[in-house]
Amino acid sequence: MSRDPAAEALVPKFQFEKLLNQDQAGRRVVLLGSIDDVPALLIAERAPFAADPEHLSSFASSLANVTNLGNNDIYKWYLASSSSASASADSQPPDLKINLFHPCTPQLIAKYSRQGIRVVTETPTVYAEHVRPYVLRKQAEGRVNWVFNILEGRTEQEDVMYREHGPEGFLVLPDLNWDRKTVTALHLLGIVERRDLLSLRDLKKEHVDWLRHVKRKLVDATLGMYPKLEWDQLKFYVHYQPTYYHLHIHIVHVELEAGATQAVGKAISLDNIISQLETMPDGKGMADVELTYTIGEASELWIEVFEPRRKELRDNA
Amino acid sequence: MSRDPAAEALVPKFQFEKLLNQDQAGRRVVLLGSIDDVPALLIAERAPFAADPEHLSSFASSLANVTNLGNNDIYKWYLASSSSASASADSQPPDLKINLFHPCTPQLIAKYSRQGIRVVTETPTVYAEHVRPYVLRKQAEGRVNWVFNILEGRTEQEDVMYREHGPEGFLVLPDLNWDRKTVTALHLLGIVERRDLLSLRDLKKEHVDWLRHVKRKLVDATLGMYPKLEWDQLKFYVHYQPTYYHLHIHIVHVELEAGATQAVGKAISLDNIISQLETMPDGKGMADVELTYTIGEASELWIEVFEPRRKELRDNA
Repeated sequence: MSRDPAAEALVPKFQFEKLLNQDQAGRRVVLLGSIDDVPALLIAERAPFAADPEHLSSFASSLANVTNLGNNDIYKWYLASSSSASASADSQPPDLKINLFHPCTPQLIAKYSRQGIRVVTETPTVYAEHVRPYVLRKQAEGRVNWVFNILEGRTEQEDVMYREHGPEGFLVLPDLNWDRKTVTALHLLGIVERRDLLSLRDLKKEHVDWLRHVKRKLVDATLGMYPKLEWDQLKFYVHYQPTYYHLHIHIVHVELEAGATQAVGKAISLDNIISQLETMPDGKGMADVELTYTIGEASELWIEVFEPRRKELRDNA
Repeated sequence: MSRDPAAEALVPKFQFEKLLNQDQAGRRVVLLGSIDDVPALLIAERAPFAADPEHLSSFASSLANVTNLGNNDIYKWYLASSSSASASADSQPPDLKINLFHPCTPQLIAKYSRQGIRVVTETPTVYAEHVRPYVLRKQAEGRVNWVFNILEGRTEQEDVMYREHGPEGFLVLPDLNWDRKTVTALHLLGIVERRDLLSLRDLKKEHVDWLRHVKRKLVDATLGMYPKLEWDQLKFYVHYQPTYYHLHIHIVHVELEAGATQAVGKAISLDNIISQLETMPDGKGMADVELTYTIGEASELWIEVFEPRRKELRDNA
């Protein structure tokens, strides 16, 4: 399993049929096609730039087809091509990463096909009448039993990084996407012990002190594990909709490259939820506000709750 | 001020001195250097792929220097170069976006250099006593004059994609980071005409109807320009802190890859601000809440306002 000239000969034989997806800000394309009449998937991504000074010294002068698009005082913007058509083009570092699946299966095609995403506005009424009942049905089916198993010490105990019992109790796990090493990419989950908070929708003004205490304890627990970190290098947020309905708080290093997990429409700052609750009248809470968020077209909530009400949502938007 | 061959002649004259930063997973480099002995910043980003079938049909066969890196059953991975050294290279779509600041100021160099990031909590008091006076000083120095120039029709009129006058008036510009083509990466800015709203901090409960109207008009304007888009494929958010203090709303396609511009601690959903204002008592507004956000250690606000109060902030956190 290493370099293989025969593998290199496959790429130019790829016959394009269909663009399955384009993501990473348009910088990745997933192409369905065939090679020798056998289905194949070709995924092309823009590569990182080479950062060595030799390359960077000749970078600007090596550009081809520099086309000015705009010009405002000291600021100008352009399109350009990285390789010139001259003989020196072969000495340019590669600018593409290519992945090839050949032959490719229908499962791979489904996995790499584009899933539509929609923005929905969940009013307090839609939450109370449709979303909360959906969540409770999923609870009854045992969808968060795995969380209870960790909280009760039955499974995954080797992953528990910190644990504290009591009314403000919680445990800390590494997020699945963290490599568990790179501190500037730190991503932890704080899972609270109490079971009455299914999501941020259950947070009320009366929980403000409790939330502040839990947050302070999560800061202390994280700094205790990573003494070189400082308290103001940590960001706290929750997801709505979350992946599972038991309140859990994401803790990330402030320099973690921001991706979908931190995006507006998915992540809401814990601190801003606390300050939002503080300005509400007594007795009110996050179940009383409209929440606007993004949702996949393949999700049950889209199919069961929002898609059937799409026209009505549009009229109220 | 539109396309400018003289501007194109500047790029190859760029003399590289130093790599200031590399981000976006390595796909953006910020180079400090000079042109004609005057300091200049050159920012290069990988461009999105062209998605038209003609280009994609010849994409695989046009690749140069295909180098196999690994091979595991049906899965193979490679590096490659997008433009071949043949005469057809000129017909390849551009694969780079270049931004040039020339002459560039020390402030721009600081802004684009790699810097530490901190999380700060801006209380209503810190806002009123320190941040708002800072913002007003910057206004007095003319920092948003360029916005007024666009609003008054003096500059950049060819970039104005849509304009509507009146109390709910606004204009729509492409965001600097958008290639102005790829609809799934759409990123527009809606800049309001009124000048009394410097940032989201100036939004009050009384602005709820105004905000809803402006948002609806921004939706209509965007769908008018891109009829294939649907209303629930657009996300709206504002930044705090913003880059400039004149209320502007980011409008992005829901499939735009989420990066720093959309990250929690920087972006706040416009819809959630509206619903937050709705649950506030009359007369209150966003100036009355704590806002927690991220800020660069090289920023004036960090140096002048937050760093000197760091111990006090820690004690209150």
